[in-house]
Amino acid sequence: MPADPSATAAHTDPPPAVNRDIVDALLASYEVDGRTQHLDATFLPSRARTIDLVECFRRLIFPGFFDDQRITRANVRDHVTRGLHHARELLHDQVHQALRHDLNRRRAAGEACDTDADCQPVARDIADRMLAALPELRRRLALDVQAIFDGDPAARSTDEVIFCYPGLDAVFIHRLAHTLYRLEIPLLPRIMAEYAHNETGIDIHPGATIGDSFCIDHGTGVVIGETCRIGAHVKIYQGVTLGALSTKGGQDYRGMKRHPDIADDVTIYGGAVILGGGTTIGQGATIGGAVFITRSIPAYHTVTMESGDLKVVAQRRRGKQQTHPLDFQI
Amino acid sequence: MPADPSATAAHTDPPPAVNRDIVDALLASYEVDGRTQHLDATFLPSRARTIDLVECFRRLIFPGFFDDQRITRANVRDHVTRGLHHARELLHDQVHQALRHDLNRRRAAGEACDTDADCQPVARDIADRMLAALPELRRRLALDVQAIFDGDPAARSTDEVIFCYPGLDAVFIHRLAHTLYRLEIPLLPRIMAEYAHNETGIDIHPGATIGDSFCIDHGTGVVIGETCRIGAHVKIYQGVTLGALSTKGGQDYRGMKRHPDIADDVTIYGGAVILGGGTTIGQGATIGGAVFITRSIPAYHTVTMESGDLKVVAQRRRGKQQTHPLDFQI
Amino acid sequence: MPADPSATAAHTDPPPAVNRDIVDALLASYEVDGRTQHLDATFLPSRARTIDLVECFRRLIFPGFFDDQRITRANVRDHVTRGLHHARELLHDQVHQALRHDLNRRRAAGEACDTDADCQPVARDIADRMLAALPELRRRLALDVQAIFDGDPAARSTDEVIFCYPGLDAVFIHRLAHTLYRLEIPLLPRIMAEYAHNETGIDIHPGATIGDSFCIDHGTGVVIGETCRIGAHVKIYQGVTLGALSTKGGQDYRGMKRHPDIADDVTIYGGAVILGGGTTIGQGATIGGAVFITRSIPAYHTVTMESGDLKVVAQRRRGKQQTHPLDFQI
Repeated sequence: MPADPSATAAHTDPPPAVNRDIVDALLASYEVDGRTQHLDATFLPSRARTIDLVECFRRLIFPGFFDDQRITRANVRDHVTRGLHHARELLHDQVHQALRHDLNRRRAAGEACDTDADCQPVARDIADRMLAALPELRRRLALDVQAIFDGDPAARSTDEVIFCYPGLDAVFIHRLAHTLYRLEIPLLPRIMAEYAHNETGIDIHPGATIGDSFCIDHGTGVVIGETCRIGAHVKIYQGVTLGALSTKGGQDYRGMKRHPDIADDVTIYGGAVILGGGTTIGQGATIGGAVFITRSIPAYHTVTMESGDLKVVAQRRRGKQQTHPLDFQI
Repeated sequence: MPADPSATAAHTDPPPAVNRDIVDALLASYEVDGRTQHLDATFLPSRARTIDLVECFRRLIFPGFFDDQRITRANVRDHVTRGLHHARELLHDQVHQALRHDLNRRRAAGEACDTDADCQPVARDIADRMLAALPELRRRLALDVQAIFDGDPAARSTDEVIFCYPGLDAVFIHRLAHTLYRLEIPLLPRIMAEYAHNETGIDIHPGATIGDSFCIDHGTGVVIGETCRIGAHVKIYQGVTLGALSTKGGQDYRGMKRHPDIADDVTIYGGAVILGGGTTIGQGATIGGAVFITRSIPAYHTVTMESGDLKVVAQRRRGKQQTHPLDFQI
Repeated sequence: MPADPSATAAHTDPPPAVNRDIVDALLASYEVDGRTQHLDATFLPSRARTIDLVECFRRLIFPGFFDDQRITRANVRDHVTRGLHHARELLHDQVHQALRHDLNRRRAAGEACDTDADCQPVARDIADRMLAALPELRRRLALDVQAIFDGDPAARSTDEVIFCYPGLDAVFIHRLAHTLYRLEIPLLPRIMAEYAHNETGIDIHPGATIGDSFCIDHGTGVVIGETCRIGAHVKIYQGVTLGALSTKGGQDYRGMKRHPDIADDVTIYGGAVILGGGTTIGQGATIGGAVFITRSIPAYHTVTMESGDLKVVAQRRRGKQQTHPLDFQI
């Protein structure tokens, strides 16, 4: 007898087979619109395996934090050798499929390209370059860990930052994705970035360039656009947007510098919106919470909202129950 | 020997059995408050199976994108037949349980209703109507995919939109949930909507009506209320709220028009807040980032914040280390 | 033959073994920076098991809602006894590891502490105190369920609130985490809080004190800081920040009161930002959407943005296609 009672209902009274007309109608709809089907196409990367790859890199970069066994100096070589082998296989496979997919897409779009090109050697080379980049990624992530710890009085230890902080999670994944982006691998960096976005609410396009010792606190709602350049020792809070001034031009704007530059030592408080490819926030500037900026700010300046914008009014005092819900407008 | 060292601690020194007083106290607390227990209740939909259903629909609507095997024109009929059968079983089960649960709830609330009603035929009919709606859902989602691609210079292909974009994920799940909402199925649409909210940070109530070619960019923090009506070719960004003016009236407001209408061709930038059931944003209007609106805006108007609201002040220039942390207020 | 075509590519042409230099380089990098490795360290709590613990508590606190079998008055004692036993084992293990980890950390930091201390009895005592607290947690959560239901006209039943509402999910996990925080357990409360943050976009530090009948609506982007104190019957919306005025002092501010106090019966609308340890929002006050507050507000006052801050301008009317994308600035 099934342990799950909800399975029972269907079993006691099974529905008849699906009507053939419904099958035919759905199949016919696959032929109408090529954008929303991917039939007979050979290669497409796998989201699940890309996430597997990110988690494999996480264990290699922060050994002992996320493993399900104890890592000691006695077993670490074995652990690392197996981890690197697994990462390399996944990476090679996914890069190869991303490259094949892109080749097919460009051929379908009528671009001139060598469609018989063998993507295997390129994929192998990329995989090896990524693995060789791990020590440098570790060096930079240690700086990010320290910056987050230093910036948050609620943090008790750097272990806690590695273990729990979504800001570090997002920056870790971004640094992986950005490395692949610079190697001109299609699709995979974006899948990684959206995994981070999904996990943390922090949306960093893999194209964004981010300097050392980067600190995102809380982070939900942060958006950092593709052509942003961010210096060292920058700190940003939840809900900050570093975005484009307008995207009405859509695909015509591809490749243009659309997002702001943030110099070293800048702090940007929660909810601030900074827009435009010509906008630069100068070194050491402080951008107050919830401000909206579309022009450059000089170095060592502070931007805040004017006080006096708020209206503070006494309510007619009375019990909660008697307040009519619409006698004030919010 | 267990691979996991954390398991060891407990095994070497097992805790004694849980004190009977603690069991009795918790059991007694189940009898005190009926709201937070669901004992002896026969039917409740399953969140896990509802998510399974959404993912099954995703594979049927976008064949070849999310399957773990290659879908070709040779195997697609078989694939679709099995997928539709699985979706129909899940749907029938979950709809049936949602209907039974609602019937029990209404009886408990003292509403007049036929508590012996057989929900099976209704559930079967609903399941068949949902399956028959799939080709139309595909047609509309192809327009959404195109709108998102056209609107984002960072997108490289429509495949990337289907594969990675949270805005499409949220709209896909919303269009499923809204179809069930219009068929007056309780609970399931909301479970679906909260799955999308959890995955994307985009919170669209299943009751909201959304026209063709809808584009949400980035999306984290978007809130779209139950009685919103949104036209065609509308584009909104992260953090936009289309909400109620006040909800102090709570349950007294159920069924009232509480959320704004957005006409065709409107663009709403990040963080804008538009409130109220009587508020209409006219055709072609552009709403700037971070504005707060509680009144209607005519067609082909642009709303922005007044510049001049910001205070830009030079900091006393000096090294970072010497800056006293509180000598400016943000 | 593998069902998954993506596996094939690698198998037909397996990559050679990972280069020994790459292994050596990564191993060497582990020796350079102690912050980002955790080798030879005995104890670290497990994120997966902490989540398992939260879900076990969820089933004990809301019996019948999240179980995969029907819970009846006939089987509930058996169900509860097994659940409590499982929760106790998990809790004992994780608390023990968190305490050991903290002891090692303090020793490494040169703090005076008894590093041979046996954390087992403390862990056992904490586990029992948490289990004994469950009936009181149930009492408080029933009030939260009711507050969320009363506050949302879109809610159809309290069951729907328990089943789907992220606001309840976040408060449920917070009340667990805060109980452990008050028992001075390191790390675990924060792991729980970040699990809630990940699931709901709601970031409540486990240190925050929250009164009865708390309602968070929608919730994405909410941030509530460590030293916040929130009264009873408070309602807050998506994107609200109750934060610190400045955190440039970083670790120097640890333990200071940095976040605001919110008195009873306060409502705070979407996107409002309230900062500072000296800021108090008085009883019954209403804070309008998107306002930015760094000073105290008296009881029974309403704070809104001045109207007149917006600029509404007619666009030169014409077809969408002809609009030059940059002839207005947003």
